[in-house]
Amino acid sequence: MIFINGGVCAAKGFKASGVHCGIRKNRTKRDLALIVSETPAAAACTYTKNLVKGAPLTVTKENVANGYAQAVICNSGNANTCNANGIEIARGMCELVEKEIGIKAEDVVVASTGVIGQPLSLEPIARGMKELCAGLDCTEEAAEAAAEAIMTTDTVKKEVAVEFDCGGVKCRIGGIAKGSGMIHPDMATMLVFITTDCAISPEMLQKALSADIVDSFNMVSVDGDTSTNDMVSVLANGAAGGKMIESEGEDYKIFCQALSMITRTLCRMIASDGEGATKLIDCKVSGAVSVKAAKTVAKSVICSSLLKAAMFGADANWGRVLCAIGYSGAEVDINKVDVDFQSRAGTVAVCRNGAGVDFDEDIAKKVLTEKEIYILVGLNDGEATAEAWGCDLTYDYVKINGDYRT
Amino acid sequence: MIFINGGVCAAKGFKASGVHCGIRKNRTKRDLALIVSETPAAAACTYTKNLVKGAPLTVTKENVANGYAQAVICNSGNANTCNANGIEIARGMCELVEKEIGIKAEDVVVASTGVIGQPLSLEPIARGMKELCAGLDCTEEAAEAAAEAIMTTDTVKKEVAVEFDCGGVKCRIGGIAKGSGMIHPDMATMLVFITTDCAISPEMLQKALSADIVDSFNMVSVDGDTSTNDMVSVLANGAAGGKMIESEGEDYKIFCQALSMITRTLCRMIASDGEGATKLIDCKVSGAVSVKAAKTVAKSVICSSLLKAAMFGADANWGRVLCAIGYSGAEVDINKVDVDFQSRAGTVAVCRNGAGVDFDEDIAKKVLTEKEIYILVGLNDGEATAEAWGCDLTYDYVKINGDYRT
Repeated sequence: MIFINGGVCAAKGFKASGVHCGIRKNRTKRDLALIVSETPAAAACTYTKNLVKGAPLTVTKENVANGYAQAVICNSGNANTCNANGIEIARGMCELVEKEIGIKAEDVVVASTGVIGQPLSLEPIARGMKELCAGLDCTEEAAEAAAEAIMTTDTVKKEVAVEFDCGGVKCRIGGIAKGSGMIHPDMATMLVFITTDCAISPEMLQKALSADIVDSFNMVSVDGDTSTNDMVSVLANGAAGGKMIESEGEDYKIFCQALSMITRTLCRMIASDGEGATKLIDCKVSGAVSVKAAKTVAKSVICSSLLKAAMFGADANWGRVLCAIGYSGAEVDINKVDVDFQSRAGTVAVCRNGAGVDFDEDIAKKVLTEKEIYILVGLNDGEATAEAWGCDLTYDYVKINGDYRT
Repeated sequence: MIFINGGVCAAKGFKASGVHCGIRKNRTKRDLALIVSETPAAAACTYTKNLVKGAPLTVTKENVANGYAQAVICNSGNANTCNANGIEIARGMCELVEKEIGIKAEDVVVASTGVIGQPLSLEPIARGMKELCAGLDCTEEAAEAAAEAIMTTDTVKKEVAVEFDCGGVKCRIGGIAKGSGMIHPDMATMLVFITTDCAISPEMLQKALSADIVDSFNMVSVDGDTSTNDMVSVLANGAAGGKMIESEGEDYKIFCQALSMITRTLCRMIASDGEGATKLIDCKVSGAVSVKAAKTVAKSVICSSLLKAAMFGADANWGRVLCAIGYSGAEVDINKVDVDFQSRAGTVAVCRNGAGVDFDEDIAKKVLTEKEIYILVGLNDGEATAEAWGCDLTYDYVKINGDYRT
């Protein structure tokens, strides 16, 4: 299982494209993406648990109800959420795909991301469809154009692909993601589109995705705000020619591993590029009495505004880690807790048995000045582990969100 | 029932004092407070639900177990939490009070606030006791000195007092609070000390306090972080000479109203002075199916980092209000939700039936540029209401917490 280039075009039989159609005013920013499979593909999706759901999610849910889809269309710059005509617009986007390249509107996954509550016009999308479809290609550049077109406040595009042996053949799986603010997924995440040429039934694909997100996207948080438009979708077209995965077994296990490599990598990318973030915070919890306790603790630590601000300042204020563990609600014996800060620059033990230990502030500063910080929490109370990804809280987060609409 | 001056010294038979003893390096900042009742007082306390609890809370709990106390000692600059010798130090502070003014150590409420996990030395406290006790007085200045001495990152001191008729006599109740960051109380709050000369039994006092905090301090959040040292304490010495409140009835009801005036005022003060805050956000929810739903929605709105940052930028980004309602977990019909922004400058309707309505951006800007912003959420689904208090998220919050320890 190795990382390769190509993003959503890495898997056989997938093409992508991304253009600027005019939803955004900035003409240099692509705002419309299309991903197409040459043949109908098994489709699995997970959606936000926010009661306020973007209209595109409702339409996508209808369209993939039969387990299959063939294309993904997604715009940035407008979430198409809390608008009276949202459903109509989302369906209209699917119909534009049918009109231009003949894939049935009911076989299209549709998504939108951007400002909530501003009516989305179909006009720029209709205008941009010709160029968008003409640009469809299976090159790395085409995959990158799609990855760019779904970005909002993201500062880097997020794509990853993996090659693996499954069903007797070489398979590939690749994905793109957007997500920088309003990131605190619950049973889904920001927009993530994954493609694979592995042959897998819709049921097994959904099973694999639903199992995966619990340990991947649901363990990411940038700001504690669960978006209205979160969605992960996977299309599997079987173009690699392998044996169809229709039940659990060795091939399913391998597919899940490959999927996990994609999702966990995208999680780290999303957290690293959290709005205003200067560093990734990766909290690894071990020795918990249960997986639930481990996850609750890991997520509480990466969600603490105080801890996030301390990480921005490279301040080894471990009391805030203890505080976040304490209010997490998890079953923990606080007198057994150990905490270490770790990065490429080294490891510093800061807390043993729930109390502070002497440490060298200069070394701690050096460790915390790195771009990727691990917070290692040992609960010494069981065998369960968990990992969660977040980022620091910075001046730029406030700046970006102090006036996002204008 | 009217507001009066005097803080914790407003009620008869209470004296206070505040000095700089040297726990903090800054010599101009008081760091040790003492409040004393002339006679033993009924005492009620509530404490943080954080599993990590400051050592002073454990000692206070023991000391007020019999329902009575006569003094409060509190230092700022060090939380005396997560220290191996914390209990010993907290008991030591009580013993210093006994040694200096003869009030039994077991009748002292002890509290600490500041950095977690740094050993607290008794030395500066012992050195400062003479000056602290010599300064005990029942003047407004003495009350202010105590209010100042418990401040950490607070920028203004927080005190309030009310006069009311109860038990056949004029009674007074007053309180001080500290709290600026790590504010997201659960069954208690930051340090709040309340004194009253109303005669009330320990049982009824605890009942009144426990009922009150559910609607007051538990509805405040600055940053979502529940402190390890949260504590509210009330001392009632009966010095007003009224009839003792020993059961529910008219007098108890009046006392609860007076208590609520104190606590709700302190809530607004704490939220207004949230770390880095430039404005108070007061979310009033109406029309909920249950009080629980109303509270969940109100608290979710004031806790949203995105909404808080938008308020800092005076950006009428109401989609973030809807988003926060949607992920709150409360039972809500999102298609019935109305939202208005309100302040001294006027009211702007921004959302009706879950969808945006046209509004004048210039007027909205004017409304949101004020120092106190009301977010009015109408759920149109029942009769229950709730109110929660928070603040905006600003550059200064990040600055303050990026390097708190140094």
